Amino acid sequence: MPKTKTQKLIPPGSRSRCPIACALDLLGDKWSLLIIRDLTFRGMQQFGELQNAGEGISTNILTQRLAHLQEWGIVSKTPYQDNPVRYHYALTSRGAALKPVLLELIRWGNAHVKGTLVPEVS
Amino acid sequence: MPKTKTQKLIPPGSRSRCPIACALDLLGDKWSLLIIRDLTFRGMQQFGELQNAGEGISTNILTQRLAHLQEWGIVSKTPYQDNPVRYHYALTSRGAALKPVLLELIRWGNAHVKGTLVPEVS
Repeated sequence: MPKTKTQKLIPPGSRSRCPIACALDLLGDKWSLLIIRDLTFRGMQQFGELQNAGEGISTNILTQRLAHLQEWGIVSKTPYQDNPVRYHYALTSRGAALKPVLLELIRWGNAHVKGTLVPEVS
Repeated sequence: MPKTKTQKLIPPGSRSRCPIACALDLLGDKWSLLIIRDLTFRGMQQFGELQNAGEGISTNILTQRLAHLQEWGIVSKTPYQDNPVRYHYALTSRGAALKPVLLELIRWGNAHVKGTLVPEVS
């Protein structure tokens, strides 16, 4: 990982130095926080598990999002098998620190979007 | 506002009943939570104020996002002047309830993205 990224600088092209804007530069899409949800609460570690998490993420979007999250030190990728090589994905400490954001999104969704259910957590 | 929306049903086409997924169906982009930030912390009420908030949102994106947030009962729009008509924007109770999400994004951004600053709040 390039040195500037381990130093956690604001992303190139960030719109401002606002921490919300910088967080959304990294995570402001419909999928990233769902991947982080599955790594945080559902014990998922493998690409196939993340792909079958229930919302129908496409292979290329999952690949792109995981690479982006890995690039920014939010997710780590570790080989656990050769021939063919397979990887485990896990949250780094920076990624694990997003749990309070997820918990507040759960509270808001449950309170303000009728019909939501809390997913089973492990 | 159509009845189904005041009943706060999950958005049509939602990917699942997960509250995080439903919240991201409504708010998972790079701009919506910045608009809500400005209405929550910065005392902004007018279109021009929101447009000049500092991140360079375009007129059409701001118009689209405000209409979407209004449609989903997160933002209200009230005329305060005729000839030409001008509107105030404000958070509904559902929108104001996003404040804890914003606070956790601020905490995460400040802790994990070097170079961020907490914006002046009012």
